[in-house]
Amino acid sequence: MDLSRRHALAGAAALAVSPLLSTSSAKAAVPLSDKQAPSFYRYKVGDAQVNAISDGANTFALPDTLVLNAKKDEVNAALEKAFMPKDKMTIHFAPLVINTGGKLVVIDTGNGPGAFAATKGSVGQFAGNMAAAGFDAKAVDMVVISHFHGDHVNGLLLADGSPAFPNAEVLVPAAEWKYWMDDGEMSRAANDRMKGLFASNRKVFVDGLKKKVTPYEWGKDVAPGLLAVESVGHTPGHTSYVLSSGSDKVFIQSDVTNHPSLFVTHPGWHLTFDQDPAQAETTRRKVYDMLVADKMRVQGFHYPFPANGYVEKDGNGYRLVPAPWSPVI
Amino acid sequence: MDLSRRHALAGAAALAVSPLLSTSSAKAAVPLSDKQAPSFYRYKVGDAQVNAISDGANTFALPDTLVLNAKKDEVNAALEKAFMPKDKMTIHFAPLVINTGGKLVVIDTGNGPGAFAATKGSVGQFAGNMAAAGFDAKAVDMVVISHFHGDHVNGLLLADGSPAFPNAEVLVPAAEWKYWMDDGEMSRAANDRMKGLFASNRKVFVDGLKKKVTPYEWGKDVAPGLLAVESVGHTPGHTSYVLSSGSDKVFIQSDVTNHPSLFVTHPGWHLTFDQDPAQAETTRRKVYDMLVADKMRVQGFHYPFPANGYVEKDGNGYRLVPAPWSPVI
Repeated sequence: MDLSRRHALAGAAALAVSPLLSTSSAKAAVPLSDKQAPSFYRYKVGDAQVNAISDGANTFALPDTLVLNAKKDEVNAALEKAFMPKDKMTIHFAPLVINTGGKLVVIDTGNGPGAFAATKGSVGQFAGNMAAAGFDAKAVDMVVISHFHGDHVNGLLLADGSPAFPNAEVLVPAAEWKYWMDDGEMSRAANDRMKGLFASNRKVFVDGLKKKVTPYEWGKDVAPGLLAVESVGHTPGHTSYVLSSGSDKVFIQSDVTNHPSLFVTHPGWHLTFDQDPAQAETTRRKVYDMLVADKMRVQGFHYPFPANGYVEKDGNGYRLVPAPWSPVI
Repeated sequence: MDLSRRHALAGAAALAVSPLLSTSSAKAAVPLSDKQAPSFYRYKVGDAQVNAISDGANTFALPDTLVLNAKKDEVNAALEKAFMPKDKMTIHFAPLVINTGGKLVVIDTGNGPGAFAATKGSVGQFAGNMAAAGFDAKAVDMVVISHFHGDHVNGLLLADGSPAFPNAEVLVPAAEWKYWMDDGEMSRAANDRMKGLFASNRKVFVDGLKKKVTPYEWGKDVAPGLLAVESVGHTPGHTSYVLSSGSDKVFIQSDVTNHPSLFVTHPGWHLTFDQDPAQAETTRRKVYDMLVADKMRVQGFHYPFPANGYVEKDGNGYRLVPAPWSPVI
């Protein structure tokens, strides 16, 4: 006791005469970081490189009707089974930048700068994370849009309403273009959400892009190695993709499911944002049976970042097995 | 046909007179990125912040004896079930930087600069990723070591043999310290691997750190909120931790399992690197039963980055459910 007290006193005396030791011992606590790592991740598909780039995530109180054909208690049970908090929902967003080796291709653009401002940076992170990943929006050759929901198209414009990818050709599904640009369809919009979507799409594509888009058909390559695949239900022109290079491929599902812990697990659940829920379910089961049979890697816009993995059967549903993160490319 | 030919010619003429358009149309392909995203990830545990920081991953041909009590075919079947290539093994490494709000605490240090040089950057990434995460090695207050294997302790030294964390107290499990510093134990080393480990530990702790370490006991906090928990078997002094802040906690398992797709799935499998395989299995089952019962988040040094999740029972084994990546803290 005496010894340790003497030691402590000696230490205090040393502090008084040694500026170096004083600095080291009295150094201020390092502040907690307030920013997550830049959320981008790269992997190769043959000679091409896929960059999953997070647009952020949005957490909100679980709505009663998120799933049209399941009780809120059942949804909460699925959340808890996945170790997620109940009575809350988090939706993740993961646009892509694909370097085919010749072309730089963006697939979907995130919620855009308005959402970034409104959520204090929770969503609308695509532009910032894309820059962190070393990509210049001016170098993008093509922007491929899967469907016309705000979390996929609003990032096409900057905050001032000008094109975010000024040198890129913007490719849109022909069926999706026809539907959302049709005044008759707009006049028949069933509810405020649909009316809002029509208005917002006119703002993006007519006011912003002056209709300078290239509609594309299913069953053809829209960019080198990027096959457009019909996967309707979520919207009338909803599109998925198969990216192939050599013998390697990945299925880019877009919104065939939303959060995997709810909709991969329960493919029969109808998401309130699916425009034709029965058709969406048919598409979902067809796609997931194919993913299981082919053991094919899948990239999902609404999977948690880095938003890719493999699918196995699990009872009446499926399970997403996230691909292990590789710290080298 | 004529029209499109005229259009093409007009385009070529325009190119010749418009430097802006020329630059835009003839722009070179963007080169493929050769570096993965800096692999760090932050999450909060109460008022503390955990930073999982990858040291990289090592891929090698699957040895016949990686699992002592399973045939290579069984191991390959487990790899394929997890959608990993057969006849190969990838081992991931994830040291931590914990900011307790007052102290900056490193847990385990990765394979070190020698491994970085030898693997051309596949492993030994901890120092670089730590810097990318904004941490200065000089600001680290404490380095807590779980056990004395090279992938946990070799990062204690810089390439020149000097301490990598010059202002940090280095805390080591008392039982581990006693074992590896005991000349009698060293003389009884059973094989070349064990002899190499003894030699390498003397180099790190005697030549490098001049034995300036603080041995710690199990059942006590080694840093604010960081409880040291006995979890022997992998080594004689192998230690896990519970980090607590308020009502929130995470179990930091260290090497209770290696890759979850092999050893969480098959807790009865004996890893060749477990010094006392039977004891390691007993510890593993005890820890995983606890994780299931308490629904406790777990951080694993050898889980794929960001190396944390939750555990559920699955048949005779367990399944790791990776925690969803949050793009905000």
